Amino acid sequence: MTQDHPNQPTAGPDAARTGVWLIGARGSVATTAIAGCAALASGMQPPTGMVTETAAFAGCGLPPLTRLVFGGHDTASCPLPKRAEQLVAGGVLPHGLPAAVHAELAAADAYIRPGGPLPGGPPLLLRAEDEGRPTAPLGAASDGPRGEEELIDSFAADLTAFTRDNALARTVVVNVASTEGAPGDGDTLPPSSLYAAAALRAGCPYVNFTPSTGLHHPVLDDAVRSSRLPHAGRDGKTGQTLLRSVLAPMFAQRALPVRAWSGTNLLGGGDGAALAEPGAAAAKNAGKERVLADNLGRLPEGQLHIDDVPALGDWKTAWDHVAFDGFLGSRMILQTVWQGCDSALAAPLVLDLARIVARAHEAGTAGAVEGLGFYFKDPDTGPADLPGQWRELMDLAGRLRAAA
Amino acid sequence: MTQDHPNQPTAGPDAARTGVWLIGARGSVATTAIAGCAALASGMQPPTGMVTETAAFAGCGLPPLTRLVFGGHDTASCPLPKRAEQLVAGGVLPHGLPAAVHAELAAADAYIRPGGPLPGGPPLLLRAEDEGRPTAPLGAASDGPRGEEELIDSFAADLTAFTRDNALARTVVVNVASTEGAPGDGDTLPPSSLYAAAALRAGCPYVNFTPSTGLHHPVLDDAVRSSRLPHAGRDGKTGQTLLRSVLAPMFAQRALPVRAWSGTNLLGGGDGAALAEPGAAAAKNAGKERVLADNLGRLPEGQLHIDDVPALGDWKTAWDHVAFDGFLGSRMILQTVWQGCDSALAAPLVLDLARIVARAHEAGTAGAVEGLGFYFKDPDTGPADLPGQWRELMDLAGRLRAAA
Amino acid sequence: MTQDHPNQPTAGPDAARTGVWLIGARGSVATTAIAGCAALASGMQPPTGMVTETAAFAGCGLPPLTRLVFGGHDTASCPLPKRAEQLVAGGVLPHGLPAAVHAELAAADAYIRPGGPLPGGPPLLLRAEDEGRPTAPLGAASDGPRGEEELIDSFAADLTAFTRDNALARTVVVNVASTEGAPGDGDTLPPSSLYAAAALRAGCPYVNFTPSTGLHHPVLDDAVRSSRLPHAGRDGKTGQTLLRSVLAPMFAQRALPVRAWSGTNLLGGGDGAALAEPGAAAAKNAGKERVLADNLGRLPEGQLHIDDVPALGDWKTAWDHVAFDGFLGSRMILQTVWQGCDSALAAPLVLDLARIVARAHEAGTAGAVEGLGFYFKDPDTGPADLPGQWRELMDLAGRLRAAA
Amino acid sequence: MTQDHPNQPTAGPDAARTGVWLIGARGSVATTAIAGCAALASGMQPPTGMVTETAAFAGCGLPPLTRLVFGGHDTASCPLPKRAEQLVAGGVLPHGLPAAVHAELAAADAYIRPGGPLPGGPPLLLRAEDEGRPTAPLGAASDGPRGEEELIDSFAADLTAFTRDNALARTVVVNVASTEGAPGDGDTLPPSSLYAAAALRAGCPYVNFTPSTGLHHPVLDDAVRSSRLPHAGRDGKTGQTLLRSVLAPMFAQRALPVRAWSGTNLLGGGDGAALAEPGAAAAKNAGKERVLADNLGRLPEGQLHIDDVPALGDWKTAWDHVAFDGFLGSRMILQTVWQGCDSALAAPLVLDLARIVARAHEAGTAGAVEGLGFYFKDPDTGPADLPGQWRELMDLAGRLRAAA
Repeated sequence: MTQDHPNQPTAGPDAARTGVWLIGARGSVATTAIAGCAALASGMQPPTGMVTETAAFAGCGLPPLTRLVFGGHDTASCPLPKRAEQLVAGGVLPHGLPAAVHAELAAADAYIRPGGPLPGGPPLLLRAEDEGRPTAPLGAASDGPRGEEELIDSFAADLTAFTRDNALARTVVVNVASTEGAPGDGDTLPPSSLYAAAALRAGCPYVNFTPSTGLHHPVLDDAVRSSRLPHAGRDGKTGQTLLRSVLAPMFAQRALPVRAWSGTNLLGGGDGAALAEPGAAAAKNAGKERVLADNLGRLPEGQLHIDDVPALGDWKTAWDHVAFDGFLGSRMILQTVWQGCDSALAAPLVLDLARIVARAHEAGTAGAVEGLGFYFKDPDTGPADLPGQWRELMDLAGRLRAAA
Repeated sequence: MTQDHPNQPTAGPDAARTGVWLIGARGSVATTAIAGCAALASGMQPPTGMVTETAAFAGCGLPPLTRLVFGGHDTASCPLPKRAEQLVAGGVLPHGLPAAVHAELAAADAYIRPGGPLPGGPPLLLRAEDEGRPTAPLGAASDGPRGEEELIDSFAADLTAFTRDNALARTVVVNVASTEGAPGDGDTLPPSSLYAAAALRAGCPYVNFTPSTGLHHPVLDDAVRSSRLPHAGRDGKTGQTLLRSVLAPMFAQRALPVRAWSGTNLLGGGDGAALAEPGAAAAKNAGKERVLADNLGRLPEGQLHIDDVPALGDWKTAWDHVAFDGFLGSRMILQTVWQGCDSALAAPLVLDLARIVARAHEAGTAGAVEGLGFYFKDPDTGPADLPGQWRELMDLAGRLRAAA
Repeated sequence: MTQDHPNQPTAGPDAARTGVWLIGARGSVATTAIAGCAALASGMQPPTGMVTETAAFAGCGLPPLTRLVFGGHDTASCPLPKRAEQLVAGGVLPHGLPAAVHAELAAADAYIRPGGPLPGGPPLLLRAEDEGRPTAPLGAASDGPRGEEELIDSFAADLTAFTRDNALARTVVVNVASTEGAPGDGDTLPPSSLYAAAALRAGCPYVNFTPSTGLHHPVLDDAVRSSRLPHAGRDGKTGQTLLRSVLAPMFAQRALPVRAWSGTNLLGGGDGAALAEPGAAAAKNAGKERVLADNLGRLPEGQLHIDDVPALGDWKTAWDHVAFDGFLGSRMILQTVWQGCDSALAAPLVLDLARIVARAHEAGTAGAVEGLGFYFKDPDTGPADLPGQWRELMDLAGRLRAAA
Repeated sequence: MTQDHPNQPTAGPDAARTGVWLIGARGSVATTAIAGCAALASGMQPPTGMVTETAAFAGCGLPPLTRLVFGGHDTASCPLPKRAEQLVAGGVLPHGLPAAVHAELAAADAYIRPGGPLPGGPPLLLRAEDEGRPTAPLGAASDGPRGEEELIDSFAADLTAFTRDNALARTVVVNVASTEGAPGDGDTLPPSSLYAAAALRAGCPYVNFTPSTGLHHPVLDDAVRSSRLPHAGRDGKTGQTLLRSVLAPMFAQRALPVRAWSGTNLLGGGDGAALAEPGAAAAKNAGKERVLADNLGRLPEGQLHIDDVPALGDWKTAWDHVAFDGFLGSRMILQTVWQGCDSALAAPLVLDLARIVARAHEAGTAGAVEGLGFYFKDPDTGPADLPGQWRELMDLAGRLRAAA
């Protein structure tokens, strides 16, 4: 990192700015991330939950929060300032925050472009929370049915225009849209993969914070490889799986065989409704089961339920019941109850990931960024236990620091 | 393995045997450890909960379970076979086990020597579970009041005789007696320190599985140093603190500030009664608090209760309530409930420690054995998080393997 | 009640005896009930969980436990003494009990008659726990395919022979077989209804302790009415629904609106496997939901899961999560965790019901016995709250006492 | 409503108004009750948690919420509108409520009179939440030390003036101050008893919503009797004890012996701090234990902890662990976790009680009002189970209705 590297991020007013393009930009997670970033940048709130703001990432050359610029795709039309007020009513955002960061929310909202319907199909990415509301009209260019290629081109053009108009050093695309059902027969790309393909086409690093397919589609394999872009995924680890990734290793290390690991998740909001769809739940649960199988050496008995409970709004409760064997066959039980706000758990991870992947791109990293398993239920690479993932994250920080 | 290395443990009939001398040898933990070792040695039971029987310790030269010989001190007179039957009734040991390992229990019982009363004081180490029963009569040698030196000499003589009579390569002393109150004014040694001093005097490695003082008394500092013996402690990590040592690092790594960590332990049996004594509870809680302070960087709000609930017998329940902050000041909660059998949690750790410390002694280790924080609430050395402690344990295994 | 009433139950050796005929007589509940009755009759065990042994039923003229005679139908062939040993291994029955009551178990086993296969279909009532074992061969009389009528006749003949051979005052039939799926299209009677029809035909009072159809089939309506026999049902209330029947009224009386009531049941054993079948689960859940709807005035949000977790054996865990509103819209939560042994919860209720219904029959009661909602998830009559059901049960006791 | 029945409350503008005088009028409970009453009276909020607003009390002639006038004593000086804003920040009151009911809060605040210091002693009723803030100066009349009689006279004068100045039909005094320690040696009246004596002297019905002594002091016995005033108490039943009063009867009715009932309460705010004082905790726990002893026939094993956890603010969490026996000695467990907002649980009960006791006074009731055990941990009269208390409350409603 030298003087002649114009993209070096600093806190100064002349430093290059970095784009964060959110697929599902008017959802709860995106709105919380955008509002929260503004609140942190102005010093209104402490950076709770953001690992990139701790000493662990000091000197790593990450783009500062003050230099992030937000935009995104969404099919919902409710403007971000209004979405933020809804989140206040739901107890997600603190009172007064939307007013305090109104300018930043409005600025981001101006860069939200419509996600579009597939020809003859349902609208893309329609979040349950928006169901029944009028969706964003498509631009004039898309008055006819758009095919996959046309959609990808259109999305990529949105990304390119965003980066150019804001004179951004780069733009990281982060998928925070509602989980889509399991992909079909391979002929058509699921929506998340269309957006991912657009990121590749526009030269943007890509983060998949959901269990949706995204870049993990065979049709995109060649494009991923040849793009030399960094990417990371998938499915942000925000609650039950986070716990499992520290508890399962404990049982393994103590040589205590887990006989059954059962769990129930209650959540409302858009996520609850989306995950009530069997395909989406299956996608989600695959990641949750992997953490058990990988850490315990085998998948124990037990089911995992995801219930849509609208009364809980954006708050979720996860109950886990672990039946394990002790010495001489004694039967023991661990139960955990995790009660948290889904968006508040996810948003700081989204900001962390956008900053790290942006910096990895700057540093020339290609392919799956190693060391990000800490953030994901179903990581591309690395160990399945949180302690191991933490060490890998620290290694990644070391590499970035060395490159800075 | 060669002829000229007589102490190297093997499973063969001619291999040297190792002594395990338990302070509190007729308590629940000791009885479970002795009965369990016999059950495992004969293949009746799998080695659940024993890390030293996993691949992690393969090739480390640990004394095999078949070559351990048990003895100990206790003031209780109930023979081990009968104690084992009591533990069956309490659901700790499986039915049929006492009969199946009667010979081993009787053999160990024959090597249990009386712990003795201090002059004018109450009997040493009287476990609550034995209160009201006649305690073991003292031998003819102690018909007058015994002073501290006389007691230490007497205990050391018991150790020396046990080692000599059984032609043992060495004897590890493990304190599994009921927790004693906080030490007084320093002039008199608490009982646990008398036994620890006897171990030093008899040249025996020492493990303190309780929060009692043991070797941690200033009067013993010089003797510990000059003895060049390995030792380990203190307070076995069997439940709530085990959980805390994986959960607290998770909060720290995720930059989620813990505002309050509250807990309640319900346990019956001798341990519950002993810990209902304020001094003993304070000793126990100090270790439990340290794991939070060390992992979180500061001690959060919240109290920790240890309740004696005789109805629960040897089973214990620990409830933890963790209030932590999320992004933008959201308030979140984690609760855990741990239900286990105390003796079944402790016994495999006791066997692990006896084997590892015996091997460390054989390998020439002196002082606090590094890498055993995995087993203790309040370890002498090393990190406070279980993942870090696991790595150190694996390093220790590597050193032992290299020395084998 | 006078000298000339030969059926008056007394504890004396000459008092008339009462038959208890269990459909599913070799299952866990039946085995526990039969073994437990013998243990109580001999004074080996206190009558924990039996309301009919409390002062509330003193002087009601119930048949004493010493005068109950057991028999039943089952397709499983494992003899009761062996089943009892299996329940010891599973922690359901105390060690030593099967040996102590071997005579009673063997006597009951001698009166267990084979449940039979439908023509061309699978065996009736094959419990999951017996799957794969050879089922009882049918008698010579049924070497051809048996139609419904033939089956009912055969079952009724078994009942009549049992009553006659033992010189019983009467025989109460109690269905404790595994839950069957939801009934089909009405043309064929489900197995539980065949047994219920046989009870009617043999003049026996009938208790349906399961959610299966039993007498609640339109085809049987006329026979039920004309029989003038007492009956009771359905689906024994042993855990989660018991709790709900006291907690839901509390919310209603305190004017605290319940927004969502979610629950998960983990259970192994035959019941877990049977209820993993969607039809059976739906039948079970209908009763569980009714208690909420009836007590709260409407059915709140929330799902109910029944998971088969074989590792738990006969022990079950039920977690409930209740989200309710407080004053000025504050959001509050109640969670409950119920951990119990299913058979030990059910068996005393089975004995209570058999005794009460036998006495009701003696007293001339016809139709659904009023006042037994205390015992059932989905009672035929009466209030939905446990306190109201308790009052009705006490009223019933009063009526029986008055008739004695 | 006719001329000759001047006190009959109606919703009309000319109906007599009823005073509610709160001891601890600037505390969380009082502030929530006053703000909430205004919000309900204006239709801004539904009457969640208020039994007196359900059909159960229709036609009973209770004073309508629109005709309640609030005042009280307190040593704190923070005005009610500001206190309400603090409760918004703590998540107790909804945003916007203080502004919407500012007039009512300010009006009540104008009637709050200073509680006074005992001669040479600490200020009366200083709530922990106000500690360190300047307390209200006493009026000119009290520039010398006030003795007990002088204090009682002064408080009674405040009550009389309030009733007269507002032309109230009557004023009910409700103690919602922080719990005081156990009373001393009987010579001096505790603060709560001074206020209770003042109520008697001013002819006001009295409700003790706390475990403090209040009217239950031998010195006051004669005055209570001769006053012919209605009173009710004590210690509002808002959470853990509410649950226990429905769960304990369930165990008793099902003949399931409870072996141990253990509990931990975590709460912050003023109540947590006050109850951390051992005397106050003991007073609180006495009521909580009584509900178990009365319902179960004996007090089971188990302790009850009340922890001050300031991080929880006004929210409280109560964990209960119930170990009970099942059939044939099986061991079972019920656990409950209750998470609620203390003030939001208490405030509707305070309003209910004030209205009912006012109406009872109007109807000529003297002494402990029968039928109010539903509201109290430690009621003066009646059964200990909530279902029985509910029936008695309905009987009371019937009596009031008949008298209306």
